[in-house]
Amino acid sequence: MEYVDQLTGEQAKELDKQYERLSYGTENIIPREEFREKLAKSIKLNRPLKVKLGLDPTAPDVHIGHTVVLNKLKQFQECGHKIQLIIGDFTGKIGDPTGKAAARKALTDEEVRHNAKTYFEQFGKIIDMNAVELHYNSQWLSKVGFTEVLQLASQVTVARMLERNDFHQRYQTNKPIYLHEFFYPVMQGYDSHMLASDIELGGTDQEFNVLFGRQIQEQFGQEKQVVLLLPLIEGLDGVEKMSKSKNNYIGIDEHPNDIFGKTMSIPDELIMKYFKLTSNFSIDEVSQIETQLENGCLHPKDAKVRLAYSFVEMLHGKDEAEKSKVHFAAVFQRNKMPDDMPEVILDKQVSIGIVELVRELDLLPSNSEVRRMIKNGGIRINQEKIIDPLTTIDIIDEMVVQVGKRKFVKLRVRKGSGKGI
Amino acid sequence: MEYVDQLTGEQAKELDKQYERLSYGTENIIPREEFREKLAKSIKLNRPLKVKLGLDPTAPDVHIGHTVVLNKLKQFQECGHKIQLIIGDFTGKIGDPTGKAAARKALTDEEVRHNAKTYFEQFGKIIDMNAVELHYNSQWLSKVGFTEVLQLASQVTVARMLERNDFHQRYQTNKPIYLHEFFYPVMQGYDSHMLASDIELGGTDQEFNVLFGRQIQEQFGQEKQVVLLLPLIEGLDGVEKMSKSKNNYIGIDEHPNDIFGKTMSIPDELIMKYFKLTSNFSIDEVSQIETQLENGCLHPKDAKVRLAYSFVEMLHGKDEAEKSKVHFAAVFQRNKMPDDMPEVILDKQVSIGIVELVRELDLLPSNSEVRRMIKNGGIRINQEKIIDPLTTIDIIDEMVVQVGKRKFVKLRVRKGSGKGI
Repeated sequence: MEYVDQLTGEQAKELDKQYERLSYGTENIIPREEFREKLAKSIKLNRPLKVKLGLDPTAPDVHIGHTVVLNKLKQFQECGHKIQLIIGDFTGKIGDPTGKAAARKALTDEEVRHNAKTYFEQFGKIIDMNAVELHYNSQWLSKVGFTEVLQLASQVTVARMLERNDFHQRYQTNKPIYLHEFFYPVMQGYDSHMLASDIELGGTDQEFNVLFGRQIQEQFGQEKQVVLLLPLIEGLDGVEKMSKSKNNYIGIDEHPNDIFGKTMSIPDELIMKYFKLTSNFSIDEVSQIETQLENGCLHPKDAKVRLAYSFVEMLHGKDEAEKSKVHFAAVFQRNKMPDDMPEVILDKQVSIGIVELVRELDLLPSNSEVRRMIKNGGIRINQEKIIDPLTTIDIIDEMVVQVGKRKFVKLRVRKGSGKGI
Repeated sequence: MEYVDQLTGEQAKELDKQYERLSYGTENIIPREEFREKLAKSIKLNRPLKVKLGLDPTAPDVHIGHTVVLNKLKQFQECGHKIQLIIGDFTGKIGDPTGKAAARKALTDEEVRHNAKTYFEQFGKIIDMNAVELHYNSQWLSKVGFTEVLQLASQVTVARMLERNDFHQRYQTNKPIYLHEFFYPVMQGYDSHMLASDIELGGTDQEFNVLFGRQIQEQFGQEKQVVLLLPLIEGLDGVEKMSKSKNNYIGIDEHPNDIFGKTMSIPDELIMKYFKLTSNFSIDEVSQIETQLENGCLHPKDAKVRLAYSFVEMLHGKDEAEKSKVHFAAVFQRNKMPDDMPEVILDKQVSIGIVELVRELDLLPSNSEVRRMIKNGGIRINQEKIIDPLTTIDIIDEMVVQVGKRKFVKLRVRKGSGKGI
């Protein structure tokens, strides 16, 4: 660790600062020690690192899932490093087989150009595109001849390729792997060689491909890049990776009101992951929000409002953020609750079974009717669907009981009153 | 079968003649019907077929094993067809992995050129090199770019490649297959496309590669070549395929006396295979020799003399064939028998144990000495080594008993005599 040991006190502090910030939220850094050394060298020699992100221009719609890597690039920019964006216009003609059960259809030149342009416009909302190096890999890959292809291929074993998860699965299940697909990682590595990249970013599903760059660089006698793997973020369904094809995404180009509304619909368990990886809150702010959520000072719904607001602000500015917040509140109000509803005043706060509560309020004629309605998802307390007929409700002031689409009752509890219905 | 059905009576006869001659000795023709159709088309349109043989210029020493394919090429020439010899100077830089347990070392340009020259000189002894089209596949393969490589590769599945015997075995036994090796069949097929070959010849171990040409030609919308697979011939050991590395070969460039002597050493079981595949005897002559061997009119040794004579004549001319035949006879005589030896005249034919026989002739002092000598391989009857001390000898007139290197006795049996020593 040549450079790490040569730093002055100030420089060492800068190293720790950058290392902490740039490591934050990564799933893995391979190898971690080399990453520290690269940063140390950059600080010592006052030379920015070259940080590569390869883009397969098959999906022109950028979504919040992409901000995981875009935010990381932005942090690198803010630390003074140089971003290398590679549009895989050559590779795009093959299509990345990663995670696919079948080979992708190749893109035409025109599609590739159009998709690349769309990427740039949308990326510009998050990173400083003026400070970015832009490359199209056709620039060098189209000049590679058969002889060089064979030389590259001669360093790669078929068994190594078949270790890649998706290839392995396809081979095992007799689904075709076309020979050209083996060249995707080779080409991606060749790009790293051509650009002498120091760092390559990728999602965890890109681990095989981005690590391959180290092998190709070594083949050419070059210093090997360090790989930063970033987590994949689940979409609105909370289960599948966010992607256009799953229709569980928040598009960067969507209308502010849609961005706000979709953000409000993410499952509570994902709130912190979104804050950490996709938002532009600082590490300290995120950690504060986490604490407040944990100790109950911040309601999940309010956390989501902050997140949604920040997304719209980041993508469309403060005015639009304000407007979409107001719009959401209005729609939410209109959709969820009637403007006035019958109130039932209680003398005391009570805990009561859901079936008993509905019967007491005379909203349904029998216990079995109540149970049937719960089974059909037709009973809500403060908009939350009740699933279990054995649920006990701790009644509080202004609690709304909803049965079916139209019956609402607001419960009021007299101040200072004890328990009892 | 468009053309086959259009032939005149004369043409149909010509087709049958060519088909019989060119099919003779092949292991397989794929597909056989297309072969007839190609021949018919050639006869109907008076257009020679293009008959391709690809050469991987790694083994400059041509041997009698190569005459299997060279003789077939010669027959095609004699039927008026055009030979396309491809020197795989481009492919040779990869090396054909066929039948190899490991990837071959790539050749330098200089080695490739030298080896190609050696091939031509030696092939000229069998085929008419003036009537041959010569090609070096670097001419077109060096111009193939990455894009075209990927297009070719996109039509090939990894599973299909791993079906090839040697790849499959290497994959199963965790021996590395390098990615460039998958391109050997692709390149061989590309050659067929570039030359619009009608026929490709290959040994049975080349089946996968030569059949691949059909796929590549089809990819380019070309009429597919027909594949003629020729048997591999065993070398002097009678077991392994003849090859330089096994040192079981008769080299085309060897001295006439060596060619003659080595041919005389082939196992009797291989005589007819050599006659059929490697010699230039006509089909009728070969069939006559086969009959004579079967009914005992021709001694295997005499058949081998004819074969050896024909090899030397084919490669060095009639004078050298005569000389090497005389030389062989002289050496054989000198090495095997003294010009005169003591004779023992017997009154009767007898059957007698080998130990008893040697003792009776007083060639060794004790039974145990005789047994020891047999064990050491020192006792021969008519030049045949005796292995078992329990062997019974049926004595006939002029039988030679040999003990060690110098003791010989010729047994004479009086005419008309009965049994008894």
